[in-house]
Amino acid sequence: MPTNRQILLDNRPQGEASTSNFKFVSAETPALQDGQVLVRHHYLSLDPYMRGRMNESKSYAQPQPLGEVMIGGTVGEVVESRHPKFSVGDQVVGMGGWQEYSVVDASQPGALRKVDTTHVPLSHYLGAVGMPGVTAWYGLVKIIDPKAGDTVVVSAAAGAVGSAYGALAKARGCRAVGIAGGKDKCDYVVNELGFDACIDYKEHKDAYSLAKALKQACPNGIDGYFENVGGMVLDAVLLRMNAHGRIAVCGMIAGYDGQPLPLANPALILVNRLKVQGFIVSEHMEVWPEALKELGTLVATGKLRPRESVAQGIEAAPEAFLGLLKGKNFGKQLVKLI
Amino acid sequence: MPTNRQILLDNRPQGEASTSNFKFVSAETPALQDGQVLVRHHYLSLDPYMRGRMNESKSYAQPQPLGEVMIGGTVGEVVESRHPKFSVGDQVVGMGGWQEYSVVDASQPGALRKVDTTHVPLSHYLGAVGMPGVTAWYGLVKIIDPKAGDTVVVSAAAGAVGSAYGALAKARGCRAVGIAGGKDKCDYVVNELGFDACIDYKEHKDAYSLAKALKQACPNGIDGYFENVGGMVLDAVLLRMNAHGRIAVCGMIAGYDGQPLPLANPALILVNRLKVQGFIVSEHMEVWPEALKELGTLVATGKLRPRESVAQGIEAAPEAFLGLLKGKNFGKQLVKLI
Repeated sequence: MPTNRQILLDNRPQGEASTSNFKFVSAETPALQDGQVLVRHHYLSLDPYMRGRMNESKSYAQPQPLGEVMIGGTVGEVVESRHPKFSVGDQVVGMGGWQEYSVVDASQPGALRKVDTTHVPLSHYLGAVGMPGVTAWYGLVKIIDPKAGDTVVVSAAAGAVGSAYGALAKARGCRAVGIAGGKDKCDYVVNELGFDACIDYKEHKDAYSLAKALKQACPNGIDGYFENVGGMVLDAVLLRMNAHGRIAVCGMIAGYDGQPLPLANPALILVNRLKVQGFIVSEHMEVWPEALKELGTLVATGKLRPRESVAQGIEAAPEAFLGLLKGKNFGKQLVKLI
Repeated sequence: MPTNRQILLDNRPQGEASTSNFKFVSAETPALQDGQVLVRHHYLSLDPYMRGRMNESKSYAQPQPLGEVMIGGTVGEVVESRHPKFSVGDQVVGMGGWQEYSVVDASQPGALRKVDTTHVPLSHYLGAVGMPGVTAWYGLVKIIDPKAGDTVVVSAAAGAVGSAYGALAKARGCRAVGIAGGKDKCDYVVNELGFDACIDYKEHKDAYSLAKALKQACPNGIDGYFENVGGMVLDAVLLRMNAHGRIAVCGMIAGYDGQPLPLANPALILVNRLKVQGFIVSEHMEVWPEALKELGTLVATGKLRPRESVAQGIEAAPEAFLGLLKGKNFGKQLVKLI
């Protein structure tokens, strides 16, 4: 039985999260029962939603229980199997959590999925061809539903969701405009991800200044917006939305640490007859096959070249996660476990 | 040619609207051209949207031009016709404005519509079986789209839109809960309009207190909300919305006079995966026939008994309008012109 190093949620953040909220432990992996599979994790995914789970209050999901392994997506390799459909050596994606190994009841629907790494690197199944990619797909295709020529904007454009959004938008003939923090990220968004423009929100002290920059980047207004951050950025975008625009609300990371961030002028929803819709991608499993197929093709054909920020070793996960919340990552934030 | 007393918009409000924004004039009605009809107005409709039109800034419609007759819905009787489809004595609904007579190019689509007053009093074509009724219908049926058993809430419940909303909601097997200002209005909403409950927002000093009252009135949470007012009421309702709830945004009368009213916690849109959609009923003419048919039947069968607040004479229109903005009316606010 290999030793399994794990990270538990030890206590809940008061305001900003910190490394002291987590606790390292080691455990033996238990012997398998019938139907179970032992997976050795190659990569752990770090995602903003995890911050919400660390709070006591119920968000769209139950809080992460204290004293248990932090929740998280993982890709890895089957190292032992007592399930007929899985063999040693299979590459799989699952929700293994912040640990080096997981024991999975492989017959539970959706618990473990075999993936093909011929054209798509294994780690991308946690990013562009995984949950973040499908998140971008759902917001763009099912909520914003753009037509060719529409201008569609995304915040946190250099992140895992934003990268996929840009490629999906360009594939639909849209003008894709990103918002990101810092010149390096904006250069990456335009030069590597193929967005038409990107605005550095850090150059703007208030929503009006940012709205002015949006006016330049979106000369025909904004038809669709994918919201990852909230706060000033949302206020600015609302000032530039076209009549009958659509806003997919996927995250409001700016407010995760504490007090709610007010929206300055909700009357704009009425004035411009907007649709503003919140969603969580795990409630829409029916779209995953179609979305993953398109995303896999975009990656395999080089039309989506997502960057990854990779921290090394399970012990690096808390710091990497806190960095993600501050926007220190470039593209998908991963932890490499082997 | 009869003398036509008219009210023009003379100047734009700075903050709150006042009678000094309007100007009374008298004019001769001009001789008719071919295709035109002269209508004598029996009732003028007063509606909250008119306040938005008085501002300089573009809302969903162009501002009301200065020096022109105030826009407004009217019902009346044809007194002279040079259009083959209209005869003297026909009862008609149109957009005649704040004046006693109007000359209408009757061949313009939608300019003038004959109505049948056998089962529905003429004035109701400006209220329950007119624009306000269809507004309630669109928000409830097309945006909120409730199923039997859902709890649906409306603000300004004693108004023209709110009254129709209650009857339409009950017809669909919903729990209908109103929010209104004052005990008299709340009694009316429950006892005469047939709502299951009504909350007096004036009894609550903040959104948390109002949310507590909503919790009592809506023990299963809120599935749909029809927004007429904005501000504290919207903040309170958001705290009680169920997952996948729908909010139809039709008005934000609380903010018409000045500074935008912020929304305290927009992250709730994400947490509860809400759909928040603004609309204006004149952009959805395709639903009017179906909506008017249902509303007419509800009135004719006594299932919707809308009350009217009637001011007498064109000279009373400005004061009645300002009263409407302050919630002084009970049900549909009209001005009787003959």
